[in-house]
Amino acid sequence: MKDFEYYAPTRVFFGHGKEENIGQIIASYGYHKIMIHYGGGSAKRMGLLDRLETSLSAAGIAYVECGGVQPNPKLSLAREAIRICVQEKAELILAVGGGSVIDSAKCVAAGAAAPEIDPWIYLNREKDVEKALPIGVVLTLSASGSEMSSSCVITNEDGWLKRSFNSDLVRPLFAICNPELTYSVSKFQTGCGTVDIMMHTLERYFSTDGEAPLTDRLAEGLLKEVIAAGRVADQNPTDYDARATLMWASSLSHNGLTGLGRDYFMSAHQIEHELSGMFDQVAHGAGLSVLFPAWCRYIYKYAVDRFCQYAVRVWNLEMDFAHPENTALAGIQATEAYFRSLGMPTHLKELGIDPTEAQIEEMAEKATFFGTRTFPDYIPLGKEEIVDIFHLAE
Amino acid sequence: MKDFEYYAPTRVFFGHGKEENIGQIIASYGYHKIMIHYGGGSAKRMGLLDRLETSLSAAGIAYVECGGVQPNPKLSLAREAIRICVQEKAELILAVGGGSVIDSAKCVAAGAAAPEIDPWIYLNREKDVEKALPIGVVLTLSASGSEMSSSCVITNEDGWLKRSFNSDLVRPLFAICNPELTYSVSKFQTGCGTVDIMMHTLERYFSTDGEAPLTDRLAEGLLKEVIAAGRVADQNPTDYDARATLMWASSLSHNGLTGLGRDYFMSAHQIEHELSGMFDQVAHGAGLSVLFPAWCRYIYKYAVDRFCQYAVRVWNLEMDFAHPENTALAGIQATEAYFRSLGMPTHLKELGIDPTEAQIEEMAEKATFFGTRTFPDYIPLGKEEIVDIFHLAE
Repeated sequence: MKDFEYYAPTRVFFGHGKEENIGQIIASYGYHKIMIHYGGGSAKRMGLLDRLETSLSAAGIAYVECGGVQPNPKLSLAREAIRICVQEKAELILAVGGGSVIDSAKCVAAGAAAPEIDPWIYLNREKDVEKALPIGVVLTLSASGSEMSSSCVITNEDGWLKRSFNSDLVRPLFAICNPELTYSVSKFQTGCGTVDIMMHTLERYFSTDGEAPLTDRLAEGLLKEVIAAGRVADQNPTDYDARATLMWASSLSHNGLTGLGRDYFMSAHQIEHELSGMFDQVAHGAGLSVLFPAWCRYIYKYAVDRFCQYAVRVWNLEMDFAHPENTALAGIQATEAYFRSLGMPTHLKELGIDPTEAQIEEMAEKATFFGTRTFPDYIPLGKEEIVDIFHLAE
Repeated sequence: MKDFEYYAPTRVFFGHGKEENIGQIIASYGYHKIMIHYGGGSAKRMGLLDRLETSLSAAGIAYVECGGVQPNPKLSLAREAIRICVQEKAELILAVGGGSVIDSAKCVAAGAAAPEIDPWIYLNREKDVEKALPIGVVLTLSASGSEMSSSCVITNEDGWLKRSFNSDLVRPLFAICNPELTYSVSKFQTGCGTVDIMMHTLERYFSTDGEAPLTDRLAEGLLKEVIAAGRVADQNPTDYDARATLMWASSLSHNGLTGLGRDYFMSAHQIEHELSGMFDQVAHGAGLSVLFPAWCRYIYKYAVDRFCQYAVRVWNLEMDFAHPENTALAGIQATEAYFRSLGMPTHLKELGIDPTEAQIEEMAEKATFFGTRTFPDYIPLGKEEIVDIFHLAE
C-alpha cells in the first residue's frame, strides 16, 4: 500500500428536508453575510431558493445572489461573482446546484479571499491557493462529488481551455444532501451522473501501481451499488433509496476514499476535459461514457489481471482462466452495455459532434499540455496514443 | 436509508516513517506547547518518544510528558493529566499509543479546556462537552478506531464504572498512522485488535432498522479484508500490507462510515464495557470475542435474513434456502472459528475469570444503567436477557 494523506473534513447533513435548516447551520458557524451561487434557474423555478432564503432570513443571515453558472462553468462568471463577493463583503459562498455550481463557487471562494490574484493563476498552476472563503453546498445533482472534493474545474473562454486546481482549502465546510432534491433530474442527466460517479472510482481503481486490497473492496462495493441504484433511478426517478445511494456514492467516490494507497492519474477524465472544453455542448458524464470504454479497449492488454478482477468482482462474470483477455474484455463490454442501458452514448457521433482530424489532434495536443507531459498510464500516453483513443471512440 | 450526519475531519498521515514529521505537522497548525500522553512505557522503551521529541525540538515545539495510561484508562490519571495541562498551558494533547491512550487524551482535552468542570460530568452524561483542546495521535495499535472517532471510554475506579461520552469536539485534529509502529504488537494484542476492528463494523451492520445497501457493501468489503489481513499479521507480524490494512480499517471501522443510514446500538460493546469494567484484566477485544458470539446465538433467530446476508457475503457460505437458520448459524460459527484461529477466547473462562451469578447480575444491572434503559436490539434486551447472554458465553 502506498503512503497517503486522507482529509475529508466536510460535514455532511444527509436526508429528507435537511435544506430547511440552512439558516441555522450557517448561523452555527458564526457567519452573517453570504453569497448564494446557483445555475440556470431551476433552483429558482422549483422554489428551492425561496425556501433557502426563508430559512436564512429567519436566522438573520443576509445574502446576495449570483446565478447563471453554466455546465462546464466559465471563468468570466466566476470573476464577476468574485467582484460581487468582495463588494458585498460576503463571508461564505453557498453553492446551490451540482458540480458546475460547486466548482464555480470554489473558484470564487479562492478569488474573493485574495482579490489581487486572478483565479486563472491557480487554474494554470502558476501558484497554489493560499486562502479561500468557506463554502457551503446544497446539492441538487448526484454526479461530480465536488461537494467533498478538493478539485475545481473551470473553462477559460479565452482559448477554451478547461483547467483545474486542487486545494484542501476549497473542500466545502458543509454539504446538505437531500436525495429528494434530485427527483426532478432528467433521465439523461441522471445517466450522466451515474457514469460520472462510477468514473471517479473506476479511474482510481485502474491505477498503475500498488496493491490496496481494502481500497479495492470499498471501490468494488460502491460500484455494485451504484450500478444497481442507477438502474432503479433510471426507471423510477422518485425512488428515495436509489437516489440516496447515488447521492452518497457521489461524495464517497471523489473525496479520496476509493483511491487511497494507489497513485492514479485519471486518463479518461483528462481527455474528456479537452472534449467538453472544445465542444461546449458535451456533458461531462456523456463524454466519459464515450471515452472510458475507448480507453479500456486501448489499455486493457497491459493490465489484464486488473481488468479481470473488475469483471469478476463488480460484474460477477466467470473467470476464463485459459483466456483471461476474454474475461477482461467481457468486463469492458458489460460496462459499455450498462452505460447504453442508461441511454448514455458510447461513440463520439452520439454526442452530436463529429470532430475533424485536426480537432482531434488539437485536443490531444492540449491534453498533453502542448507536449509538456505524457500520461503515466499502464503505458505512457502521449499525443499519438490519445489520438488513437479518440479514434477508438468514433 | 435513514437520515445521517457524517463528520470525520481528522487529517490522516498514513505510511512509512510519517511520525518523523511530527514537529513540522504540529508547527503547521501554529501550536507551540503540547502535552505528550502515553501508556505503560513501550513507546519510551522502543525509542519512539525520543524520535518524536527530537522532531518536536527541531520544530521549536515545547512539551511536557504524562505517561502511565493503562488499558481500560482510568479517570484518576486523566484528572492528573488535566492538572498538568492547565498548569503548563499545553495547547494540544499528543496521544502516543492505542485506544486507551487516545481515549484518555480525549478526556484530558475536554477537561483541560474547561478545568472548572470535572470530566466525570461528561462521562456520566450530565452535560455535553462544549470545548476541548485539539488532539493529535501517533497510533501504535490498530484496534479501537479512536484516532478518528468522537467517542471516549473511561473507567472511574470509584465504583468501577466504565462510561463513555461522544463529542465531535474530541475527534482528533490529525492522526499519524505508520503500520510499521505496530510490528511489535504481540500476537494476542493483534488478535484483540482484529476482533475490535471487526466488531465496530459488525455492531453497526447488525442494526435493527433501515436498508442501507451501499453502507452494507462497504462494511462487507472491509470485513473480508480485515479477516484476511488478521490471518497474515497473526502469522507474520512484520507484513507491511497486512498491518496497513488493519490500521486503515481500524480508522474506517469507527469513524462512522460503516454504519451510515442505519440506527445502531452496539449491544455487545455495551455488555463488554461492564465486563472489563468489573474485571480489569479483561482486554476489550478479548471480551468482545467472548460476548459477540453469545449475543449472536441469542439474537439471530430474530434477524435470520440479516445473518444470512452476512454469512453469504462475508464468509462466502452457500445459502441454504430451505433452512436459512442453518446459513445464519454457519456464519456465526465461521466468526467464532476465526476468532479462535487468532488465539482469541470465546468463553468467559478463557478470559481467566469465573464470574459468580451475583456478579453477572450486577454487570447486567449496570449495563441497563440500573434499570433505566433497555437495549433497542432486534428484541428489547433488559437485565434478564443480558444475564442470558452472559450464560451463553460461559
